[in-house]
Amino acid sequence: MTKIIMNGCNGKMGQVITRLVSEDNECEIVAGFDVNDSIENTYPVFTNPDEFTGDADVIIDFSHPSALTTVLNYCKKRKLPVILATTGYTDEQKKEFTEASKEIPVFFSANMSLGINLIIALAKKATKLLEGNFDIEIVERHHNQKIDAPSGTALAIADAIDETLSYPAEYVYDRHAVRRKRKPTEIGIHAVRGGTIVGDHEVIFAGTDEVIELKHSAHSKEVFAVGAIKAAKFMSDKPAGMYNMNDLISTL
Amino acid sequence: MTKIIMNGCNGKMGQVITRLVSEDNECEIVAGFDVNDSIENTYPVFTNPDEFTGDADVIIDFSHPSALTTVLNYCKKRKLPVILATTGYTDEQKKEFTEASKEIPVFFSANMSLGINLIIALAKKATKLLEGNFDIEIVERHHNQKIDAPSGTALAIADAIDETLSYPAEYVYDRHAVRRKRKPTEIGIHAVRGGTIVGDHEVIFAGTDEVIELKHSAHSKEVFAVGAIKAAKFMSDKPAGMYNMNDLISTL
Amino acid sequence: MTKIIMNGCNGKMGQVITRLVSEDNECEIVAGFDVNDSIENTYPVFTNPDEFTGDADVIIDFSHPSALTTVLNYCKKRKLPVILATTGYTDEQKKEFTEASKEIPVFFSANMSLGINLIIALAKKATKLLEGNFDIEIVERHHNQKIDAPSGTALAIADAIDETLSYPAEYVYDRHAVRRKRKPTEIGIHAVRGGTIVGDHEVIFAGTDEVIELKHSAHSKEVFAVGAIKAAKFMSDKPAGMYNMNDLISTL
Amino acid sequence: MTKIIMNGCNGKMGQVITRLVSEDNECEIVAGFDVNDSIENTYPVFTNPDEFTGDADVIIDFSHPSALTTVLNYCKKRKLPVILATTGYTDEQKKEFTEASKEIPVFFSANMSLGINLIIALAKKATKLLEGNFDIEIVERHHNQKIDAPSGTALAIADAIDETLSYPAEYVYDRHAVRRKRKPTEIGIHAVRGGTIVGDHEVIFAGTDEVIELKHSAHSKEVFAVGAIKAAKFMSDKPAGMYNMNDLISTL
Repeated sequence: MTKIIMNGCNGKMGQVITRLVSEDNECEIVAGFDVNDSIENTYPVFTNPDEFTGDADVIIDFSHPSALTTVLNYCKKRKLPVILATTGYTDEQKKEFTEASKEIPVFFSANMSLGINLIIALAKKATKLLEGNFDIEIVERHHNQKIDAPSGTALAIADAIDETLSYPAEYVYDRHAVRRKRKPTEIGIHAVRGGTIVGDHEVIFAGTDEVIELKHSAHSKEVFAVGAIKAAKFMSDKPAGMYNMNDLISTL
Repeated sequence: MTKIIMNGCNGKMGQVITRLVSEDNECEIVAGFDVNDSIENTYPVFTNPDEFTGDADVIIDFSHPSALTTVLNYCKKRKLPVILATTGYTDEQKKEFTEASKEIPVFFSANMSLGINLIIALAKKATKLLEGNFDIEIVERHHNQKIDAPSGTALAIADAIDETLSYPAEYVYDRHAVRRKRKPTEIGIHAVRGGTIVGDHEVIFAGTDEVIELKHSAHSKEVFAVGAIKAAKFMSDKPAGMYNMNDLISTL
Repeated sequence: MTKIIMNGCNGKMGQVITRLVSEDNECEIVAGFDVNDSIENTYPVFTNPDEFTGDADVIIDFSHPSALTTVLNYCKKRKLPVILATTGYTDEQKKEFTEASKEIPVFFSANMSLGINLIIALAKKATKLLEGNFDIEIVERHHNQKIDAPSGTALAIADAIDETLSYPAEYVYDRHAVRRKRKPTEIGIHAVRGGTIVGDHEVIFAGTDEVIELKHSAHSKEVFAVGAIKAAKFMSDKPAGMYNMNDLISTL
Repeated sequence: MTKIIMNGCNGKMGQVITRLVSEDNECEIVAGFDVNDSIENTYPVFTNPDEFTGDADVIIDFSHPSALTTVLNYCKKRKLPVILATTGYTDEQKKEFTEASKEIPVFFSANMSLGINLIIALAKKATKLLEGNFDIEIVERHHNQKIDAPSGTALAIADAIDETLSYPAEYVYDRHAVRRKRKPTEIGIHAVRGGTIVGDHEVIFAGTDEVIELKHSAHSKEVFAVGAIKAAKFMSDKPAGMYNMNDLISTL
């Protein structure tokens, strides 16, 4: 039973994690930290972390990048592993927690979604097997308010495939302007935009009379909560060092 | 029971139609015409059409554009409706059969697939209802030897949607170069290329927390045979004039 | 510009409609009715409907079945069309609003989703064209807490197809127990259950080397709000009588 | 450059392999064996295998189960690895080639498709990571002439997942008869039947606001040829023993 401290327990994601952990019989929240203590939880909430000295295996931080130093100091003092699930860290802050990882186990991943990281791992495995016989394309879909295309996640998938291939891939975003056959080295990347789609990513491996598709659909940001809890269980017994979702997945 | 004459009965598509008609209890082939009479069929085959004067309701032509004049003359003499299922007619030839349609019923469609024409009709209906609330995108997939992109069919779908919309649509083939939100007037058109995919077309209507997808997958050119047979049944009792797949579908 | 009265404006769906209407330049909310007036809206809110006597074209009711009589009386007094978007009416209540439709235009649909009703209309059209050449199957997906299977919507789609077919269809829910070929009259209905999936419905038409798929995915109940607004615009100029989503779609 | 002997080179699959190898620059066919030598190939064809004593690294057998003893004897004499790509071996014959594997390397897989075996491997990896947080369902689609349901491949995927789970799974084929929530231990298996669909398999992992799908579509039996060639390259340098697709995939 992994004992979790939830930092930022009364924020939106903190409450999602609270709900998910209550349905999980492998872990429990033993304490919450939050500047706002107006929500009633099934665990005690502290506005001052130092007041909690009870047993704990790991801390999940879903508060705010600005709380980083405070969180790291608390963890160092208690030799606690930390899951940094917040986004928006500066390069300066990334150095700060990398430095801290010499003393404590630190988990940080560019994308906390278990599913997306799994898709990346599976796409790499598929690429190794299918390289040379299959063409690879990526189609992503997002809502009509998104200003960048393709999505960062689509590029992360493409990059992971590119690193796996024995030759350099060529990313192709538009085929309408030219009349020519697809080159085997191409990775076509297509950005569909419409409505309120939260985020779909599909990797297509097309071969001789055979197509393999790996698809991920996210319907809310709750997916990051699931990833954070999985990371908490994974980190509870680790030595000091930097860890990410890929470490978690590759142990399986 | 529609009585069909199969022109080009011993070609690849003629044989597919022969097989499909044999499993269909609403029509039968009463005679085949072909310069090559080396294949044994369940119906008589004539190298010279004039030798067949038996009962018939309609003729399907899957021979060659060069046979057009001969076919039209035979039909005019016998007042027979004709299904022109061959592709590759010149503008001259299109004039020729349009002229002939003053005397006989002539069926010609840019795409003989029942499914694709249905998708176009459904996409138009969906567009009428959803316009203003949903964003429209098209994703097509074809094999890696195809040199044009997007496919002619994808453009035909986009054009049909564009004509249905109350405003002019803007076709968008590439979003990676610009950082901006999707405009409501856009129709994103994405050309996936890979392996031996025969032809998939998908129309996506994305609204508020709701996505509607209309998808067509063709796995061989046999789909044109199904369309030709459906057209033969449809045409058997029609007066002189030009007809196409859209006429067939809109009678339903 | 359709002038809407929003009954139940401060409930969850009332607020969704408020947001969507504010982004729509073909309609506006001129007044809200709600027992709870604690939310600040851009339009006046009345706890007593009789206090509002301003101009209006239609009323959307997203309050509660128990409010039916009050709503109908208000509409009858003002000769206003009403959109009954609430679910859970008793047979008694259905008789009540059917009776009221002799005096006023009443809109009621078992499913207020525009998308689902569109899929049903498209499936019927496809069935007419493809009957005899294509096999029809339905796959639906819902969350793991749903206790009924298949979904009411899947059955509504199957029933609409069944009524369209020239022969009686046979619904098949399980094929693992028998060893035999699919009968052409079958409609296979498959209920996938998992996670928090809100509701996906897919109709598959499988023919000779050709597959057509019509798919609807709902990601929240907001889809009912879009349907209600569309209905409000549709109803603003209608004579007394009962109307439903199918009437709205078939005018297109 | 792997030197392949193609046993059954003039059969349908032998010719597919001939074409695919001619486009592959990592292997070549150095000789073909077939009782029928009427087809002109780019390599010499022998009706009597013993007449070919040239260099070779591996033999692919796509002839007939009845040829097993002859093939094994030729391989034992020449210490050649063999890819047994034929289906329909009796238990007796399976014993025979297992026995032979003490002397020579023997490759045999229940399913020679690279893609299906990859999907199984990926589904196992996904199961390890997602167990406890995601529900697992399988949907397969096949043509309307198939008499068994679900497909052997769907069951093979389910079995692989079942072995990976830390608890015994319960296969569920029908939900329409009962009113109850999905149990976490269920694996729903759905058999869609229609048209001429060659074979689609989809594994669905549905979690909290997140769905992962692994999908394989085969459009012809050519997929077995690709698997056989991959196996040939894999086996060319192996010691005596039994090998299958899983060995090939897990080396990656």
